[in-house]
Amino acid sequence: MGGFFGVASKTDCVKDVFFGTDYHSHLGTVRGGLASQGPNGIKRFIHDISTTPFRSKFEDDLPHLKGETGIGVISDTDDQPVIIHSHLGTYALVTVAKIGNVEELVTEAFKTKTTHFAELGGGNINPTELVAALINREASFVDGIRYAQSRIEGSCSLMLMTEKGIFAARDRLGRTPIALGSKDGSFAAASETCSFPNLGYTVDRQLGPGEIARLHADGVETLQPPGDKMQICSFLWVYYGYPASSYEGINVEAARNRCGAALARKDDVEIDMVCGIPDSGIGHAIGYASERGVPYRRPFVKYTPTWPRSFMPQDQTVRDEVARMKLIPIHELVRGSRMLFCEDSIVRGTQLQDTIRLLFRAGAKDVHMRPACPPLIRACKFLNFSRSKSELDLAGRKAIAELEPDNAPQVQDYAETGSPKYCAMVERIRRRLGLTTLKYQELGNMVEAIGLPKDKLCTYCWDSAE
Amino acid sequence: MGGFFGVASKTDCVKDVFFGTDYHSHLGTVRGGLASQGPNGIKRFIHDISTTPFRSKFEDDLPHLKGETGIGVISDTDDQPVIIHSHLGTYALVTVAKIGNVEELVTEAFKTKTTHFAELGGGNINPTELVAALINREASFVDGIRYAQSRIEGSCSLMLMTEKGIFAARDRLGRTPIALGSKDGSFAAASETCSFPNLGYTVDRQLGPGEIARLHADGVETLQPPGDKMQICSFLWVYYGYPASSYEGINVEAARNRCGAALARKDDVEIDMVCGIPDSGIGHAIGYASERGVPYRRPFVKYTPTWPRSFMPQDQTVRDEVARMKLIPIHELVRGSRMLFCEDSIVRGTQLQDTIRLLFRAGAKDVHMRPACPPLIRACKFLNFSRSKSELDLAGRKAIAELEPDNAPQVQDYAETGSPKYCAMVERIRRRLGLTTLKYQELGNMVEAIGLPKDKLCTYCWDSAE
Amino acid sequence: MGGFFGVASKTDCVKDVFFGTDYHSHLGTVRGGLASQGPNGIKRFIHDISTTPFRSKFEDDLPHLKGETGIGVISDTDDQPVIIHSHLGTYALVTVAKIGNVEELVTEAFKTKTTHFAELGGGNINPTELVAALINREASFVDGIRYAQSRIEGSCSLMLMTEKGIFAARDRLGRTPIALGSKDGSFAAASETCSFPNLGYTVDRQLGPGEIARLHADGVETLQPPGDKMQICSFLWVYYGYPASSYEGINVEAARNRCGAALARKDDVEIDMVCGIPDSGIGHAIGYASERGVPYRRPFVKYTPTWPRSFMPQDQTVRDEVARMKLIPIHELVRGSRMLFCEDSIVRGTQLQDTIRLLFRAGAKDVHMRPACPPLIRACKFLNFSRSKSELDLAGRKAIAELEPDNAPQVQDYAETGSPKYCAMVERIRRRLGLTTLKYQELGNMVEAIGLPKDKLCTYCWDSAE
Amino acid sequence: MGGFFGVASKTDCVKDVFFGTDYHSHLGTVRGGLASQGPNGIKRFIHDISTTPFRSKFEDDLPHLKGETGIGVISDTDDQPVIIHSHLGTYALVTVAKIGNVEELVTEAFKTKTTHFAELGGGNINPTELVAALINREASFVDGIRYAQSRIEGSCSLMLMTEKGIFAARDRLGRTPIALGSKDGSFAAASETCSFPNLGYTVDRQLGPGEIARLHADGVETLQPPGDKMQICSFLWVYYGYPASSYEGINVEAARNRCGAALARKDDVEIDMVCGIPDSGIGHAIGYASERGVPYRRPFVKYTPTWPRSFMPQDQTVRDEVARMKLIPIHELVRGSRMLFCEDSIVRGTQLQDTIRLLFRAGAKDVHMRPACPPLIRACKFLNFSRSKSELDLAGRKAIAELEPDNAPQVQDYAETGSPKYCAMVERIRRRLGLTTLKYQELGNMVEAIGLPKDKLCTYCWDSAE
Repeated sequence: MGGFFGVASKTDCVKDVFFGTDYHSHLGTVRGGLASQGPNGIKRFIHDISTTPFRSKFEDDLPHLKGETGIGVISDTDDQPVIIHSHLGTYALVTVAKIGNVEELVTEAFKTKTTHFAELGGGNINPTELVAALINREASFVDGIRYAQSRIEGSCSLMLMTEKGIFAARDRLGRTPIALGSKDGSFAAASETCSFPNLGYTVDRQLGPGEIARLHADGVETLQPPGDKMQICSFLWVYYGYPASSYEGINVEAARNRCGAALARKDDVEIDMVCGIPDSGIGHAIGYASERGVPYRRPFVKYTPTWPRSFMPQDQTVRDEVARMKLIPIHELVRGSRMLFCEDSIVRGTQLQDTIRLLFRAGAKDVHMRPACPPLIRACKFLNFSRSKSELDLAGRKAIAELEPDNAPQVQDYAETGSPKYCAMVERIRRRLGLTTLKYQELGNMVEAIGLPKDKLCTYCWDSAE
Repeated sequence: MGGFFGVASKTDCVKDVFFGTDYHSHLGTVRGGLASQGPNGIKRFIHDISTTPFRSKFEDDLPHLKGETGIGVISDTDDQPVIIHSHLGTYALVTVAKIGNVEELVTEAFKTKTTHFAELGGGNINPTELVAALINREASFVDGIRYAQSRIEGSCSLMLMTEKGIFAARDRLGRTPIALGSKDGSFAAASETCSFPNLGYTVDRQLGPGEIARLHADGVETLQPPGDKMQICSFLWVYYGYPASSYEGINVEAARNRCGAALARKDDVEIDMVCGIPDSGIGHAIGYASERGVPYRRPFVKYTPTWPRSFMPQDQTVRDEVARMKLIPIHELVRGSRMLFCEDSIVRGTQLQDTIRLLFRAGAKDVHMRPACPPLIRACKFLNFSRSKSELDLAGRKAIAELEPDNAPQVQDYAETGSPKYCAMVERIRRRLGLTTLKYQELGNMVEAIGLPKDKLCTYCWDSAE
Repeated sequence: MGGFFGVASKTDCVKDVFFGTDYHSHLGTVRGGLASQGPNGIKRFIHDISTTPFRSKFEDDLPHLKGETGIGVISDTDDQPVIIHSHLGTYALVTVAKIGNVEELVTEAFKTKTTHFAELGGGNINPTELVAALINREASFVDGIRYAQSRIEGSCSLMLMTEKGIFAARDRLGRTPIALGSKDGSFAAASETCSFPNLGYTVDRQLGPGEIARLHADGVETLQPPGDKMQICSFLWVYYGYPASSYEGINVEAARNRCGAALARKDDVEIDMVCGIPDSGIGHAIGYASERGVPYRRPFVKYTPTWPRSFMPQDQTVRDEVARMKLIPIHELVRGSRMLFCEDSIVRGTQLQDTIRLLFRAGAKDVHMRPACPPLIRACKFLNFSRSKSELDLAGRKAIAELEPDNAPQVQDYAETGSPKYCAMVERIRRRLGLTTLKYQELGNMVEAIGLPKDKLCTYCWDSAE
Repeated sequence: MGGFFGVASKTDCVKDVFFGTDYHSHLGTVRGGLASQGPNGIKRFIHDISTTPFRSKFEDDLPHLKGETGIGVISDTDDQPVIIHSHLGTYALVTVAKIGNVEELVTEAFKTKTTHFAELGGGNINPTELVAALINREASFVDGIRYAQSRIEGSCSLMLMTEKGIFAARDRLGRTPIALGSKDGSFAAASETCSFPNLGYTVDRQLGPGEIARLHADGVETLQPPGDKMQICSFLWVYYGYPASSYEGINVEAARNRCGAALARKDDVEIDMVCGIPDSGIGHAIGYASERGVPYRRPFVKYTPTWPRSFMPQDQTVRDEVARMKLIPIHELVRGSRMLFCEDSIVRGTQLQDTIRLLFRAGAKDVHMRPACPPLIRACKFLNFSRSKSELDLAGRKAIAELEPDNAPQVQDYAETGSPKYCAMVERIRRRLGLTTLKYQELGNMVEAIGLPKDKLCTYCWDSAE
């Protein structure tokens, strides 16, 4: 998905930008980038972070970055920040975006015969450079950002650093978040609020949907007020967000605890312990355990010292090993147990299947699964949501395809909890995974656990609602 | 402390050694090393792992390592493995050791005028090379290892790789562990059993105190049987070990759960939630919560994507920031709460003090602390136990020094739970840390939670027993 | 100045491009770049070559480059090749250019509000990206290249790699050269013909001024025929070119030998030996020695193993040392000698002054200097000619300024060999350098030694002719 | 062969050691090393220099090296400096040595059961560590060095850095040189005197054979006076040494000029030009040209910007290309010419054969060769002389083997210039190389050109004399 962090300060802010960006490392595994605006202009570093953590890669660059304004980014896709010279001036740009209509926008740009894209590393047009080209079409940054957001199908939040500070612009429908924070003499914007407290920043507020603000050393001013409509991604609470972060003022860990409690209230299966698949399943599991008064246990631990994140080794044979290396079973806790696992969601279920087999082999008596959200039946078209590349690979869609092999099934029919089609789909998934029981969260309960009105949340992947 | 992993196999074992060693990364932050014994002799790589994880550093070396025998090490001190040519042949050596009498041993070695040490990087004699020099004094590897262990004050477990397999030798009193594992065609030895399951190895057994075994492609043979006396470090369960590991057949997470439960059985303080200081406090906290039926919660999370381990940046100003960067508070959960924290132990308490202040500032109503072991009054002299450099810096010893500034206090007097001196010391610690209440585990309860007879456990840091 | 090399072949050509580009290393010290066009599009690497040779930097990239078409560049300024996506398609571009009117061209580009420049590393607009933006203004590559060359003040030779081969375009007035070579199944273009023989290429011909050719696996076709006017830089023979290269069919070493002979024919000073300042002075000196029948000697050697080229260490204190490190005097040959040095030219003379002092200190009896060209009185405005940053720093211009401190002198008056003003200027230079005698080449003799008609050669820096 | 450089100074000397060692880069292509003795002990860096020049590799280390004493080394074999802790104290050691009896010395060392060798990188015992082990056998450094030199078959010059300065010890028979230099407040020792002038050092004198001196901040004292016998390698002047260096007060370039002149005095072949195979053939050729009054020309140039030295790329396919890449022919000078080449010597002649063919293909009319020394018939057993791995591969020995295929020929019979066997051998070599004529230097003339008495020079490879 990606995330960014920026600071406008009265003093050198490079260290804050370094650590603040690092606190977004859970949001991407491909590229990291830092840029600072100092007396000699913009200085930038971009590194591959696929096999080495952000901090290890950027530590050597710190002495070469200086400035009172700076931005950083963790990207799951392109090289960022891009640095652009245009009629608007020289600026650095970072985005958290998905552009569904790249081809259309590029074709249009090439019609003028005056636009080109200067690739920065990969073989394709850099999406962030494309956003810049759209911004440049207008006479001011604010008009340009609005124009770019209006033309992009998908979503686009961004930060744009100029000599006059940082323009922070949240996606038109607020699909991805931007928070504002401050401390004495410094103003910051970030995707994740968990980046603020340890750097001394207070969380001031969230930008609203479509809002554009400019951060400078003396404060923050709103240049474009927020819109009414919001479609923030529910998965931020269920899966993506860091437990210590909040969006729209709602904390992730607390929302997960409520999700788990909601699952528990509908459940009476007999179990010895509740467990969570790290990392995001843990918050759900703790909530479940507390609500039912059943012990929370860790029969599985993740090897965090070096497996904290998706790690993509170059060697393919090594890469194949990685999936099953992260979680270590504790046989002493598994043996003879009736276990209930909470997990954020079931995407393809491939790894889960292995895990469940391993548990039974280690002597588990029963293994129950309680996903914190309903079955996924759509792939996301709004965010770079790497977990479901192909819609038809989703565990739910596979089950539907097996149930109606010859038809073009109405997937929407399977979205209604408790309906015969829903039940048949869930049962197929349960059997394929080899679970003792499988009960999904109901959509209404998940929405309630998050705590925002349903029409402000994007729930497309569960109920096709746009 | 350090840890090691070795394999003797019928086929190339480099990948197993790479991942198996990586699973020891929580035991050291200074150097990593790998060596393989292939057709062209021993090949070795050593890297600084202080700012970049083991796997990132060694991934590029994998294509250059080949062999059916291999060893790896995570070291908190010296460069390892050392490769030694001597009258015994050519071999690679890794150790988990503390040598208290380096100076005596070196002086003795120099008397012969035929011994030298060829420094491998740092400015001092490499302790592992010193162990090798002791081994070489005898006519065989087994006699040499026994001689070395008999001369070393402190402790010494080791693995020694030759053309004929790996000699694995556990410390004379078993202060540090070595486990044996196997899978089809491969035999492995490791400090941590958590390195076995995901590589397909079954845990076969632990080496006994002083036992020496040789691993080769066809099996494991004991060359020196185990001794009777054992003094394994209690802290392996309380703090050092990974939750998924077992020593003497006792799992770490389960022992921590029992530790927490023991604390809970003696407690009736009114609280809203139980929490654990990551990482080792969590197992204790889960046990406490379950025993008292109070919700386990995470008002604090560790930023695991890049802060999973002690990280030592080169730049001092950056280094100063690191301590307070790892844990992120969740204000939503802290506000208005009566919280009880479990932690493995209180060493100096400096960081803890900051954390507790932060919690009260975030709105905590009460903050109670329940360490999983008694107050520390001695610094370890048996292991490289980096947490307490100076005995007088220990929170307990500081309290004692304040209570008896003029005397040379009998620290042993403060070791008896419930005695007036003990209570005065604990109260001083509580006040300094700013805690609502502080209750330490009793030694007997901790020993019982671990589950070994007291005379097999080293408890020196709590009761001065040797 | 910079230089480039490209190949279109029926088979993989990466190794040829690697070595062919390396043979241009004497032309630049800042950046190197390689790009190949393979089945998966264009792949590119750019490295800083200021402290490490091209080959050391790019060797690790070779396995990652594949393709039957490839280009490489040694650049004294910007990051190259740039890779451009535009209405003309995707292409890689390298240039040997000086753009005197960057500001005008950028201002014009920004007027459309549809052009931006995406900086690749430095803080300014990349000149090669600017050339690309000009090319994109037309409907075809040939029209675009012609348009770009017509708009650029200075000079511009370039190579542009597309899926359909390489467009090689020589500067409108042929200020910088491009040669064509071929071997079985491969066609190449290069700045330096010395890159051809060891890779098996025969030198076929030079592109004419303004000529545009397309190289593909089956041959070379001229898309734009050469123009009539030529203004090729005389310094290519006198200083820049490698001895084994030829331009317009005239070999550098041979031209230097003729230059030296021309100096000798006008000289009768009594000397014991003739010497050349490495590297470019040697060819002149050999010609002089042979013509007069005086021994050629090496009382000075350059430390070629690691000082073969301008080397720019990061550390300023180290950088200051570098200038005087390259040449090592041989006292045995210097002592008591009457020495005559040939040198390509005298630019500022600063280093020369040190060298001459050193020779006298080492016991030289006489030190005579014979530059291969007339005094420089203009800074080049056509090429990136790093040797003379400021016109007023030229040894000739300094002398003129001293002779006429109050006037705005007519520098042209000093250009005529043998005139009183010329003699006064030369005498001042001689005295400042501490030389026994100083005699410059006459322009006509230099032109004759090169062997092209004067109107085809640019001689601006000596006689202000444009 | 290798070379070293050391300084003892009143102020920090790291920069001098860095540049001084760099000036030995022509003597080795495998490893470089630097060590400094500062207030915190010895600090050392060792790098692979096989594909990147010494300066590029060590520049980043400079800030980490501090000290008033320092040594550096260019090694063709082992990792150096080794740092040794022994009863003599802690010291760093560099050697220029060949140990012919390694096995005997190691076996003897292992007999004590108290000596080990701690490999530093490669798979074998480090020869410099073996020298250290020998030194340690005695009660003082001087006695130890004498003992080591007396036991080593081959040769051994060394520098040993302690807290009390640098012990510089020349080989017992002076087979390799050590020169002393000084400047205000600094005393230096070096293999090559060409390292002195540009760093401000005056050449004071050469150490005599077997002499041991100690350099400290206040001066140089001789601890062991020089011996009478000397056997310095003749090849230092003929091939190995840098033109600007002197040994025994005799400059290399001057000696080569005399060598060439000696060849010329015996020659009357009709030629158009004299040429030298770079680098070492040039000095010989210049001397020849001057003596006969024939023009010296460069129909061949070496691509010095990146091919200044033996370069060993990792990739074998690339490595195969390297041999023929360095020299670039200049067809304009070759065509129709009667050329005479001087070369230091003919070793195997493989590359030479290719070069000669290339010249004839480029249109040479005649190609004559005049080696500066007699035919080689023995491989060196005293130095690490990488040019002749196997004695039987020598061009001379191959010719002998062809002439007497069935016998065990008396190679000594072929050493006498002008004898029938000698002439038959030379004629075979000439034909194999395809030369027009081939005339070797006579041994007596070569010795005379060097200028030392024959009994002070080692001439073993030509006349088997020991």
